[in-house]
Amino acid sequence: MAALRGQLALAGLQACLVPTADPHLSEYLPQHWNARAWLSGFSGSAGSLLVTADFAGLWTDSRYWVQAESQLRGSGITLMRAGAPDVPDMLDWVRDHLGRGDRLGVDGRVMDRAATLRWQSGLDKVGVGLVLNLDPVDAVWADRPGLPTAPVYEHLPPHACRTRADNLTAVRAAMQALGADLHLLSTLDDIAWLLNLRGADVDYNPVFLAHALIDGQQVRLYVAPGKIPVDLADRLAADGVVLRDYTAVAADLAALDAGVRLLIDPARVTAGTLSHAPQARLIESINPSQLLKSIKNAAEAANIRDTMAQDGAALCEFFAWFEAAQAAGEPVTEIDVDTHLSAARARRPGFVSLSFATIAGFNANGAMPHYRATETHHALVRGDGLLLIDSGGQYLGGTTDITRVVPVGTPSTAQRADYTAVLQAHIALARVQFPVDTPSSVLDAVARTPLWRRGLDYGHGTGHGVGYFLNVHEGPQSISVRSHARPHQDMKAGMLTSNEPGLYRDGHWGIRIENLVLAVPVAQTAFGSFLGFETVTLCPIDTRCVVRELLSSDELDWLNGYHEQVRERLLPLVDGPARDWLLTRTEPV
Amino acid sequence: MAALRGQLALAGLQACLVPTADPHLSEYLPQHWNARAWLSGFSGSAGSLLVTADFAGLWTDSRYWVQAESQLRGSGITLMRAGAPDVPDMLDWVRDHLGRGDRLGVDGRVMDRAATLRWQSGLDKVGVGLVLNLDPVDAVWADRPGLPTAPVYEHLPPHACRTRADNLTAVRAAMQALGADLHLLSTLDDIAWLLNLRGADVDYNPVFLAHALIDGQQVRLYVAPGKIPVDLADRLAADGVVLRDYTAVAADLAALDAGVRLLIDPARVTAGTLSHAPQARLIESINPSQLLKSIKNAAEAANIRDTMAQDGAALCEFFAWFEAAQAAGEPVTEIDVDTHLSAARARRPGFVSLSFATIAGFNANGAMPHYRATETHHALVRGDGLLLIDSGGQYLGGTTDITRVVPVGTPSTAQRADYTAVLQAHIALARVQFPVDTPSSVLDAVARTPLWRRGLDYGHGTGHGVGYFLNVHEGPQSISVRSHARPHQDMKAGMLTSNEPGLYRDGHWGIRIENLVLAVPVAQTAFGSFLGFETVTLCPIDTRCVVRELLSSDELDWLNGYHEQVRERLLPLVDGPARDWLLTRTEPV
Repeated sequence: MAALRGQLALAGLQACLVPTADPHLSEYLPQHWNARAWLSGFSGSAGSLLVTADFAGLWTDSRYWVQAESQLRGSGITLMRAGAPDVPDMLDWVRDHLGRGDRLGVDGRVMDRAATLRWQSGLDKVGVGLVLNLDPVDAVWADRPGLPTAPVYEHLPPHACRTRADNLTAVRAAMQALGADLHLLSTLDDIAWLLNLRGADVDYNPVFLAHALIDGQQVRLYVAPGKIPVDLADRLAADGVVLRDYTAVAADLAALDAGVRLLIDPARVTAGTLSHAPQARLIESINPSQLLKSIKNAAEAANIRDTMAQDGAALCEFFAWFEAAQAAGEPVTEIDVDTHLSAARARRPGFVSLSFATIAGFNANGAMPHYRATETHHALVRGDGLLLIDSGGQYLGGTTDITRVVPVGTPSTAQRADYTAVLQAHIALARVQFPVDTPSSVLDAVARTPLWRRGLDYGHGTGHGVGYFLNVHEGPQSISVRSHARPHQDMKAGMLTSNEPGLYRDGHWGIRIENLVLAVPVAQTAFGSFLGFETVTLCPIDTRCVVRELLSSDELDWLNGYHEQVRERLLPLVDGPARDWLLTRTEPV
Repeated sequence: MAALRGQLALAGLQACLVPTADPHLSEYLPQHWNARAWLSGFSGSAGSLLVTADFAGLWTDSRYWVQAESQLRGSGITLMRAGAPDVPDMLDWVRDHLGRGDRLGVDGRVMDRAATLRWQSGLDKVGVGLVLNLDPVDAVWADRPGLPTAPVYEHLPPHACRTRADNLTAVRAAMQALGADLHLLSTLDDIAWLLNLRGADVDYNPVFLAHALIDGQQVRLYVAPGKIPVDLADRLAADGVVLRDYTAVAADLAALDAGVRLLIDPARVTAGTLSHAPQARLIESINPSQLLKSIKNAAEAANIRDTMAQDGAALCEFFAWFEAAQAAGEPVTEIDVDTHLSAARARRPGFVSLSFATIAGFNANGAMPHYRATETHHALVRGDGLLLIDSGGQYLGGTTDITRVVPVGTPSTAQRADYTAVLQAHIALARVQFPVDTPSSVLDAVARTPLWRRGLDYGHGTGHGVGYFLNVHEGPQSISVRSHARPHQDMKAGMLTSNEPGLYRDGHWGIRIENLVLAVPVAQTAFGSFLGFETVTLCPIDTRCVVRELLSSDELDWLNGYHEQVRERLLPLVDGPARDWLLTRTEPV
């Protein structure tokens, strides 16, 4: 930190901002780009560090306050609890503490264009300069890790259900409609989807570091040499995909003709990458691939259904083991839950990796929506209460994400009432029917109504899009009351979304019930086309915590109908204790 | 039209756009500003006319297609059905039909700043100029009506529940928070609210033509001489309100210091008005008074409850007459409905005027959400079916807006099923409980769920804000799935909003059930503050069309509870046949 402050002084900067981001604006960063973690010692996946000559503060949201408090202890870095009522947001802090003529440095290579414009306009008003082309951290980070080098491979039929040529045609049609000559992609899931390629450069998401530049004839794919096997390179060439070095994107952007109409998504390209093409006329829009990949086609939907059955079977095996271990009085920790569940998934055909780090939280730990047990901090699952398990896998035929809560010992009356309320919220969304193109944000109110009615609520959204053997979090739809009602967030047939209402009693217990749902046409009337949700996740929802009297007959019908289907679909895939467990846990209530 | 085309040629314009708007962006225009109606012969309240040398088109939305088709016949003006799938919007049409170097004229005095910027940016891209400072219509409109001259009066206690000084303090605090030196208001309800003044310059809204310029010390109120009595002028002066001629706003804006920080609402000030102050630094935000007046205080809420009882009593008298006339076989037209209902309201204490033109539509006419019976086109209410009546009044103690649907003869099974579905939607919203500051848009899904479930829907929003003895339509909240989820649209305690789901079977019948609801605190829990809706409108909801078996016990409880309250509150205010009618129509189901 002292070295960094020296660099700031050398560069004539009064402050520097270190966000948690990389040139691809990924959810999971290669270590090379995690300067914020390296500098601060805080290992959480979200947060921004601000350093001045006499202050260092880490802004992070409520998910990470406990962890950050512990990891920042003694570092001289102040924890800034982002979102707390008395804590200014970082831009406001900078506006209050820097003066006219001061300069704030940020590595523009990792800051998206939309955020950059917001900061620039906010700082302009107080006469503070934003310097984007200096990376003061690099100079002090002696043992900075290199970039990942995992090989790239092709996502092939029958798991891949669209051809590269089809995807390119669709994106080029959107480019034409927007009047663009060229389209720059930096987001890794967009690139992987577009080209039917996958990789392993970051945890949990099967993507690889790359940029892509698309015109009417060819695609220039910027990827480190040696990552793409020769035979794959040949197949790519046949589809007009030209390989270029990962770093060559800067020179190629600089060499574009003046006035070229370049389509970019301001939230998905960094200011640093764009700085190489000042001569381009920018056409700003959401990446067309965002919408295209969110809508799963019929073949993908069929593969997803099969994948969900495999994933559900893995969960049956895990839960059969878990209940047996509990019954036998064997000590089971939250770490053991992760280990056994991951192993069960790994035995299933098509499994590639987890789709995110398993969250297994017992009682109070379950009240932290993004809790992760560690070797040093985790709980033994023993006594009375609720165990929350949120987990998922990457399979060649789809990505899964499921949360279940199961009783341990004898849950309390209050826990069972909360569980039932969350289940009602889950069922409300599972059963809703709505017009095609309804803004996804408004559906959140339908899920929350059964909780709101009791004065209950939860702080996260109810649904995020899920990729097809891609990122477990994708857009553009978002079932969240706070989402903007923009046209591209409208719900369309084929969208795969999570349904995950929850309830968190700080320090006591947490509940979340999550399935993935596929938007499907259900009616065509004089009033238009209506969609409903097909629940595609297949795994029993524990009924031991259900307070039956609180459920309406419609809700009971849904629950029993779901379990009938789960039993029928999973039975062929399990045997032994897993089979017995499935039969028991799908009994009607 | 030929004369207008001559003017266009003289002015070097290839096209001119005539919107339906005035310098105050009001819902109801003085005739002086209704150039669009005068030019086209189309008398509907919404639509824009576009004229070129060889084309004239009137864009209007589906509410007006039937009326516009009939009124435009033989005029040479093409009806452009705005919103129909094959009809370009007006800006797209202009971009397609005008060429680089062409110029489009619009009277900037009546076009809001936000729309102006949108048009400018859209036309820039195709090289078409937007000319805002010419009014080609004025030159050809020989007998243009003058501006209205109704006197201005003061809204006094006990009906006015805030002092002018309090309102000014609140607005000035908002100005200071936004860093503004000055604030320009052009919207008439904002000005009337701010100064506790009312007028009668336009139909239905108790407002007067004015602009206002507010600084830290004084308010300059621009209003035509003679409208404000001398004693009122003295009282205004005591609160720092200086009277200036209506037209002096231009000169005063031009005389502002360079760089003055001027707060304006880009949707509520016209480009023409702003063109006088090019030297100002604009601070763009929603008018602070929009939010302040949307939140009714306790005294206002008490007056509103009293006003609702008076309005409900008037409706009892009307419906008693209507049912007696029907029973006696007397011919009753939709016009008679309006006449008798308006007369019943006019007999009530505090009544000032209607709050909008009564909509009384029998069967197919009820299927047009904004239908208005005219002397030449109206129906006899006879036979079997449903009569929809949407009406409201301006009272010194509040503004009302209510829709009821009543059976005529024997409604069909399908009509009763539709009626029950709409009632369920109405009850769903009436009963919902939600966290303070929930975006109002998402509540719409709660209302629509019972209809969506059956493949039904309606094309308008479910709720608009309602003024306090002011405009019947005000913001900022909007219970509409298509509203933007902006912070100022969040639902707050004290907001008065309509609850008006509907269902329209084109050519057959229409249903809408509308009450006004006040957002009130209902619970404070570990999860925050929760609001619910107090239904303040008091008038029986006809139960003869209710299919009892379709209602849940919660829904029946709500309906019977509402009627118990209606009976109790209205009984002291009615006698004779109205009293009998009230007792009959509030029987529990």
